[in-house]
Amino acid sequence: MVSIPRGFRDFPPPFMILRKRIMSRIEEVFKRYGFDPFETPALEYWETVKGKLGEEAESRLMFIFPDFLSKEWYTLRYELTFPLARYMAMHPETPLPFKRYHIGRVWRHEEPQRGRYREFWQCDADVVGSPYPEADAEVISLNIEVMREFGFRDFTVKLNDRRLLTGVFEEELGISNPIPVYRSIDKLDKIGEEGVRADLLSKGMHEDLVDRIMGLISKRGKFYEIAEDLGSIRNEAVSEALKHLEEIFSIVGDERLVFDLSLVRGLEYYTGPVFETVVREPRIGSLAGGGRYDRLIGMYSNRDVPATGVSVGVERLIDAGLELGIFDLDERSYVQVFVVSVRRDSWRYAWRVAEMLRREGFYVSLDLMRRSQSSQREYARKLGAKIVAFVGPKEEESRTVTLYTEQTRMTVDLKEVVGSVKKLLSQS
Amino acid sequence: MVSIPRGFRDFPPPFMILRKRIMSRIEEVFKRYGFDPFETPALEYWETVKGKLGEEAESRLMFIFPDFLSKEWYTLRYELTFPLARYMAMHPETPLPFKRYHIGRVWRHEEPQRGRYREFWQCDADVVGSPYPEADAEVISLNIEVMREFGFRDFTVKLNDRRLLTGVFEEELGISNPIPVYRSIDKLDKIGEEGVRADLLSKGMHEDLVDRIMGLISKRGKFYEIAEDLGSIRNEAVSEALKHLEEIFSIVGDERLVFDLSLVRGLEYYTGPVFETVVREPRIGSLAGGGRYDRLIGMYSNRDVPATGVSVGVERLIDAGLELGIFDLDERSYVQVFVVSVRRDSWRYAWRVAEMLRREGFYVSLDLMRRSQSSQREYARKLGAKIVAFVGPKEEESRTVTLYTEQTRMTVDLKEVVGSVKKLLSQS
Repeated sequence: MVSIPRGFRDFPPPFMILRKRIMSRIEEVFKRYGFDPFETPALEYWETVKGKLGEEAESRLMFIFPDFLSKEWYTLRYELTFPLARYMAMHPETPLPFKRYHIGRVWRHEEPQRGRYREFWQCDADVVGSPYPEADAEVISLNIEVMREFGFRDFTVKLNDRRLLTGVFEEELGISNPIPVYRSIDKLDKIGEEGVRADLLSKGMHEDLVDRIMGLISKRGKFYEIAEDLGSIRNEAVSEALKHLEEIFSIVGDERLVFDLSLVRGLEYYTGPVFETVVREPRIGSLAGGGRYDRLIGMYSNRDVPATGVSVGVERLIDAGLELGIFDLDERSYVQVFVVSVRRDSWRYAWRVAEMLRREGFYVSLDLMRRSQSSQREYARKLGAKIVAFVGPKEEESRTVTLYTEQTRMTVDLKEVVGSVKKLLSQS
Repeated sequence: MVSIPRGFRDFPPPFMILRKRIMSRIEEVFKRYGFDPFETPALEYWETVKGKLGEEAESRLMFIFPDFLSKEWYTLRYELTFPLARYMAMHPETPLPFKRYHIGRVWRHEEPQRGRYREFWQCDADVVGSPYPEADAEVISLNIEVMREFGFRDFTVKLNDRRLLTGVFEEELGISNPIPVYRSIDKLDKIGEEGVRADLLSKGMHEDLVDRIMGLISKRGKFYEIAEDLGSIRNEAVSEALKHLEEIFSIVGDERLVFDLSLVRGLEYYTGPVFETVVREPRIGSLAGGGRYDRLIGMYSNRDVPATGVSVGVERLIDAGLELGIFDLDERSYVQVFVVSVRRDSWRYAWRVAEMLRREGFYVSLDLMRRSQSSQREYARKLGAKIVAFVGPKEEESRTVTLYTEQTRMTVDLKEVVGSVKKLLSQS
């Protein structure tokens, strides 16, 4: 009878403490790169979103519903880029570049499974207003810095450009309907080169063409080598893309940034560079990704405003980190000090001690259940409080408090409690 | 065409920076009182909520809608206490007391007006598991501490007990349908004593009875005096309430906590002490409130678990504070340092300086628009960056950076930039 909606989650304190810690570290990197916080409604008018997110999202993945009171149709926020585009269209006065980060929940009608939820959090940072590779380089550097922040070493940021896909597959190879080809290419990591080859052949493509495609997408790594190979293809799309990418590579200057012609990325609004960050070990796939979308804001306002951004896959980061033991749920509570009242009539004194410590900024709890001393200790242990402060008739009479940590025990004067607690916490 | 749903809001950086600052101060007080973070879904099954929130909420204020994909009916979270009760019913293994705080958004179909939105944030702290006045005293003390945190001095926490209302109005005065009487009493602050009297008389009540009611509800202030007046009324509800309240008053020991028999509070699930915090000047009404609800969790689980809590009206706090000039939107960006590239070919050196400062934890931006030096300066000024770092051919050649603040200007060696920036920021 009583249940939580399928695919949705409650987060009790140990999970929230971990999630808050991880998200605030991501947020800190966003701030270091000069991004500012931003928030939008959970709901958008369906009318405003309709037709912009692609067939799959709109028919299968979005929560779209009528509101009987207002007679409006709403949709739950599917991702965080669209609300930004809607905002920019409504606020053309915003000084550019507008560098905002947005950490918030989104809703998708996914079939729930490990690591996939109907409600989850996204962490996005976008630069609106700049058409230049400097902006792409900045979000890519930010992405690398997030990975470094969490101690990942063996990762790769794959970079490609949508214009290359167009210039190579459509213009040069003359593939008039390239979408199925992109879909096959996109599976390269999953099914391998032979798999993609078989996939393309099964779609009725000529073997020569498939050979040429395979020759192209098997290229990954150093930009200049691949750019040289592509040198024979001379159309505007390819030239523009190569020039743009060259500048990004030269600014970022990190060898973990690699050129990968097989990178496609799903979302349909990208117009330039696209990138995806993968860790090779453990095999959890992509942890972040993004790209340039110079025509999305124009869909709302009829005035194109260039933009580029990155989204960090915080849910995957958390789930993977927990599974791999990089993160744990050991911090069950923020409580630093639990004040045990040895006898019931010591409670008022315990309250006084607790209030004193709270005023000094410590995180403090005390008995609210009229429990025995040993039950209070047991509860404090469950919370993981670093200090257990005992007060009984003896302490009350002598105006002292007895402090216990795992390592030490000391009885200190009431006037010295704050100093002692500070010292004990700094040691633990 | 492009619009934001009525009653919903976007929060650009100056608003978010302020909101985050205010909410993190509230959160800090919650933590000091030993509460831990908690989160629940934005959606609940309507089936699970139905019949628990009262007629008005369910027929007029809640967003209730069908989901066409899952064929379920959902409701958007109306407040934060119900999800907690649902969680407790689903997790009877949770160690008690469970002290959680929850800062999150809720949705109500209010008619939008100044200070009233369809999507807004609540900041709640609740103690689940304790039936004792110690728990009520703790959340009331926390409430007082939040007020102190924001510098309010002239405030009052009105305290009453639902059992007193029952014991006095229903049992003692024999009013069989007390709801209209409570509604009148609840308006005391708005319409004054004469207004309430007229309201009660207009409902056809006998003048003697009205006199007696007015005599009771006009009593506010010192607990013992009022308790003595109520001494003649001897029924179990009144005795229990007075005993419970006496302990709360004696623990909290703050003269801003006053006994007020006219306090009713709207929500129907309260079973014991109820309280509300009002500031007299400025006249913005109640800034926080809460109470005990010992039978709400039992509505989900058939097993009553006592609980008490407080909700801080953060939206009112923000709106009122902005209006009154207590808060401002002057911090437009977190950016501390903006690195101006004097000439286009200095940009790479600017990037190097920016990356160096970012690695050290500073919040840094630089030109992404290929703008002139003066446009970059103008943009940095708009952001409110405390330090503008200039790099041109001269600086690049000599491996230096020129730092400007409002007060000072200095050219420092690249190796000393971090130290100088730290110092300048600490001075500003």
